[in-house]
Amino acid sequence: MERTLAKEARQKAGCRIRLCGWVHRLRDLGNLTFLLLRDRSGLIQVVLEGKDHPELRLETVVTVEGKVVANDKAPGKVEIQEAKVEVISEVEYDHLPLAVNAKEIKEGLDTILNHRVLSLRSPLVHGIFLVQQEIIRAFRDFFRARGFTEIQTPKIVAEGAEGGAEMFPVKYFKKRAYLAQSPQFYKQMMVAAGYERVFEVGHAYRAELHNTTRHLNEYISLDVEMGFIRDENDLMAIENEFLRYLFSVLPETCGEELAQHGVELADPGEIPRLSVREAQALLQKEYGKRLPAGQIDAEAEKLLGRYIKEKTGSDFLFLTAFPVAKRPVYAMPMEDEPALTKSFDLLYKGLEITTGGQRIHRYRMLYDKMQAFGLNPEDFGFYLDTFKYGVPPHGGFAIGCERLTMQLLNLANIREASLFPRDVERVIP
Amino acid sequence: MERTLAKEARQKAGCRIRLCGWVHRLRDLGNLTFLLLRDRSGLIQVVLEGKDHPELRLETVVTVEGKVVANDKAPGKVEIQEAKVEVISEVEYDHLPLAVNAKEIKEGLDTILNHRVLSLRSPLVHGIFLVQQEIIRAFRDFFRARGFTEIQTPKIVAEGAEGGAEMFPVKYFKKRAYLAQSPQFYKQMMVAAGYERVFEVGHAYRAELHNTTRHLNEYISLDVEMGFIRDENDLMAIENEFLRYLFSVLPETCGEELAQHGVELADPGEIPRLSVREAQALLQKEYGKRLPAGQIDAEAEKLLGRYIKEKTGSDFLFLTAFPVAKRPVYAMPMEDEPALTKSFDLLYKGLEITTGGQRIHRYRMLYDKMQAFGLNPEDFGFYLDTFKYGVPPHGGFAIGCERLTMQLLNLANIREASLFPRDVERVIP
Repeated sequence: MERTLAKEARQKAGCRIRLCGWVHRLRDLGNLTFLLLRDRSGLIQVVLEGKDHPELRLETVVTVEGKVVANDKAPGKVEIQEAKVEVISEVEYDHLPLAVNAKEIKEGLDTILNHRVLSLRSPLVHGIFLVQQEIIRAFRDFFRARGFTEIQTPKIVAEGAEGGAEMFPVKYFKKRAYLAQSPQFYKQMMVAAGYERVFEVGHAYRAELHNTTRHLNEYISLDVEMGFIRDENDLMAIENEFLRYLFSVLPETCGEELAQHGVELADPGEIPRLSVREAQALLQKEYGKRLPAGQIDAEAEKLLGRYIKEKTGSDFLFLTAFPVAKRPVYAMPMEDEPALTKSFDLLYKGLEITTGGQRIHRYRMLYDKMQAFGLNPEDFGFYLDTFKYGVPPHGGFAIGCERLTMQLLNLANIREASLFPRDVERVIP
Repeated sequence: MERTLAKEARQKAGCRIRLCGWVHRLRDLGNLTFLLLRDRSGLIQVVLEGKDHPELRLETVVTVEGKVVANDKAPGKVEIQEAKVEVISEVEYDHLPLAVNAKEIKEGLDTILNHRVLSLRSPLVHGIFLVQQEIIRAFRDFFRARGFTEIQTPKIVAEGAEGGAEMFPVKYFKKRAYLAQSPQFYKQMMVAAGYERVFEVGHAYRAELHNTTRHLNEYISLDVEMGFIRDENDLMAIENEFLRYLFSVLPETCGEELAQHGVELADPGEIPRLSVREAQALLQKEYGKRLPAGQIDAEAEKLLGRYIKEKTGSDFLFLTAFPVAKRPVYAMPMEDEPALTKSFDLLYKGLEITTGGQRIHRYRMLYDKMQAFGLNPEDFGFYLDTFKYGVPPHGGFAIGCERLTMQLLNLANIREASLFPRDVERVIP
């Protein structure tokens, strides 16, 4: 008999079906046993005769054959009666280190991550990554529909794009190499190579020692780079449009999982903007918070997020016009105020989820800027030479996928938004 | 005025439009100059008054405004007349190291790869990566439609899945770590975590010293893992079905690019199969080629590919039933012949593009097998422990994306199918 998924059973009332899955819960009712079966689609109740089922321990893998009968009290409003159960794969534990079938996982984050295969079985956790995949799918769909080509660029690189200190060294045969901090150079080169508009969903690596709730050392970066722009406003406009699309499409593609997490998404509308200078003035006036020129720290992000939510109702805020000294060498300076750059960050609920901006596309300007930054242009030859051969005005941005997921689902720690997070302490599992 | 793409111009005959792109070719006709403009969509001819255009060097970035006029002899059957050209971004080279506008690139592979931004501008090369992206898109579409969830798993890992010798070491803070040779452990763990069916498009890393036309040290792996299978035949069936889908969909999504490369795709149909033992007997009988037990080397793959093409017309061949000693520790042995495994390779035009098979899903069997392989089960605790908690019968396979692209487009070297290839000598650009 062909297999039926749990969520498909309700369309087969009266039929005999075959289900496969894990023993999620067992309830002994004297002369009956209720088995809650879990498969990738959800849960379904199975009624078994008798109470003696020693072979059925929690998380045992089974097939069930039986008849679908309507039952308004059961999950999915059907249950399986006249059921025969067969064990496909036994369990071998003494005790489960984590209660998969609890409504919320009570165990601490370390236990959740150490026993990742078990915690991922919990329907609430399972839902996080279904939402994450729908975010990634929406990202691809949106940019592909606008003429962007997807790319995969190398993660083993000779030089860093964001400064050399925070890179992981790789022993690459007899050469020195690193893990890429971002696809920055490569996505720019792909614009220059005539693809004009590119995006990438790929890993980025930061050897930062931060051990916080919002840093990962390996994360998924949703990167965009776009040629023939007027300036950074085109980039903020398209990111804004993407977020409006995302928030309109997620309730359709993963509405159940959002509801599970108690999330209702509202149209982000036109995202408000503040220059860094305006933001700093506001922080000082409203909260008495003073910051070094051009700097917005994590606390400031939180305060700005709260302020803008109260004043405008927006969860999002673009910060613009960062000073040259706070941005990488390739950031395009403003014509009328060359100490500032055509760059931006995007805050979501008080957390930076995007950095972006227009890039320098002129060879001589980039060469001089490298020298002014104390970099040796020869070390970046393969990148710098690109700009000798005709590069259009361009720019882009990157969205931290786990940060977006975390903020959207109101998770407390970014590690909850990563299947197998990598942090300062953790490379296992 | 809004920008129009070159390929959209033919729908605007009689209108004035604005185009943006690169100067692809210049032809001086005395009192006229023909400018061939290249953008991401293709080429278009622009007619300029006079012959003196010193500002227009090859690869200069320009905008063109003019009137669309039908001309059957021009590419796309229209040209731009009454044109005004404006330079957006100048070039700064003495000479172009590579003729972007040549019909075929005459320069050697090293020049092509050293000047990747220029070689990628060549329409023929540009097409390779449009086809590659359509392969990846088809892969995602096919498996998603069959209930598979996309995953992104870590590439920084503590232990290798395919044996420890050929891994790139990473200095990960105070820990020893490596780049993942494959997502093997993680995709199996995701099946076990209740996702049941997963796929991944991600980088894989092999520190192999091979310097051949078919090896990359960083490549894109199209990975599939599937729970609740009967045996490896389910896996070969779904890969076969995917390839039939792929070959039916590519002519629709990138027919022009396939034609550019002279490729016509025929339905792969039912892919023939040979066991390794049968293949070895055949190689000896037909070609006098003797091989060590269970081994099929690169020459043997070529001969088998040629043989099966002649006998059956198929470009594909599944090789099955590899011996235990030739497969990784997690390969499921056959019940009736435990020295063989439920595994397979797929050859395409005589080159292995896939390795796959059923995996061991029982804790005790895997534990014992690790010991028999001389591995310390404790080193693999995070993976091995998974199998204590109920794992269904499962298996999967991986398709080498660059190899599939290379064979499909009849490229001579796998480096041509990688945007920025990484080999023993090359980490730049």
